[in-house]
Amino acid sequence: MIKLYYSPGACSLAPHIVLEELGIAFESVLVSLKDGEQHKADFLRVNPRARVPALVVDGKLLTECPAILTYLGGGYAARGLWPKETWKQAEALSLMSWLSSSVHIAVAGIFRPERYSADMAAKESINATSKATLLNYYADIERMLTGKSFFAGSQYTVCDPYLLVFYRWGHRIGVDMKLQFPNWTKHALRVASRPTVKRVLEVEGIKIDG
Amino acid sequence: MIKLYYSPGACSLAPHIVLEELGIAFESVLVSLKDGEQHKADFLRVNPRARVPALVVDGKLLTECPAILTYLGGGYAARGLWPKETWKQAEALSLMSWLSSSVHIAVAGIFRPERYSADMAAKESINATSKATLLNYYADIERMLTGKSFFAGSQYTVCDPYLLVFYRWGHRIGVDMKLQFPNWTKHALRVASRPTVKRVLEVEGIKIDG
Repeated sequence: MIKLYYSPGACSLAPHIVLEELGIAFESVLVSLKDGEQHKADFLRVNPRARVPALVVDGKLLTECPAILTYLGGGYAARGLWPKETWKQAEALSLMSWLSSSVHIAVAGIFRPERYSADMAAKESINATSKATLLNYYADIERMLTGKSFFAGSQYTVCDPYLLVFYRWGHRIGVDMKLQFPNWTKHALRVASRPTVKRVLEVEGIKIDG
Repeated sequence: MIKLYYSPGACSLAPHIVLEELGIAFESVLVSLKDGEQHKADFLRVNPRARVPALVVDGKLLTECPAILTYLGGGYAARGLWPKETWKQAEALSLMSWLSSSVHIAVAGIFRPERYSADMAAKESINATSKATLLNYYADIERMLTGKSFFAGSQYTVCDPYLLVFYRWGHRIGVDMKLQFPNWTKHALRVASRPTVKRVLEVEGIKIDG
């Protein structure tokens, strides 16, 4: 019995896509961050950290995107969403860990500067520094995807939907993703063209460029 | 051929300890963050991100603590530093991912506020917000370790030296760790009493409470 708590377009989009790709039975539960539902008692009983994604497997909670994606990809290895070689697995985990601990942090500095300073006056400078940092990270991702169909090469893995989350956020931050990141744009269109990904985007009510 | 690039007391301490525990041949290379050596050309050729730890295996680079620790723990599973059950592995990865993407970020807001805002005036408020956030996270860790010898229960895993890094940082930030976090203090003393850990602390020239 698997439940995924998600909010439309949050980083929970990545495990949402992966669950759909695996073709296993799961229930998705909407927790609208826009409406502050993550702070309500019902959800805090599920995840006291008030964050999505939260994966609940047989009543037990698992949090953090890299852990959830590795658990799903590696736990259902026969579905082919997880690299087979040890070194490729390490590289996948390194990417996901960096996305979570560096790239997502820069995005949070743009959308949620109050996490880093309670002082309203600091918000503008946190926004600006975070955006400059983020564009450097995005340039790194653009380089990583040069000449490759997917992050791991020819194999589509759990890393690819996770990258799609950040691609979409780029648009929302006002970056001209098509112009500035053409390799990543090709990658995003390739991922988004998968029928499973299309279904999840429809369920969440979102598009990759808006 | 394994090389670990580390700086004394940085989060590279965790893989440094794990390499020593595994009893495999490795070379440790000092990159002093205090002296800004991470920004010098020699190291940037190894890791363009200018961060430690950097693990180089047969000439290939692996970055990010959760990835390095999982690679070492899981890759040398016979040495017993990695949980055997899938769910316990997922929990270990969830902890490490959270340490890297939340707890370390709060520490960086205290030691390196310039990462979040280029404006000098914002530093004080980033420091204050980060410290308040950090103390909440530390209270979470204290709860996690209640009634357990190690994070995974009775088994010592790669998670435990990673927790030791943050314990030591608590002291450096001026938190009275013994008074405020007695379970974690017992855990830290238990980890630090291991001969392998003692050896690495000596090599790095550091103590767990200073």
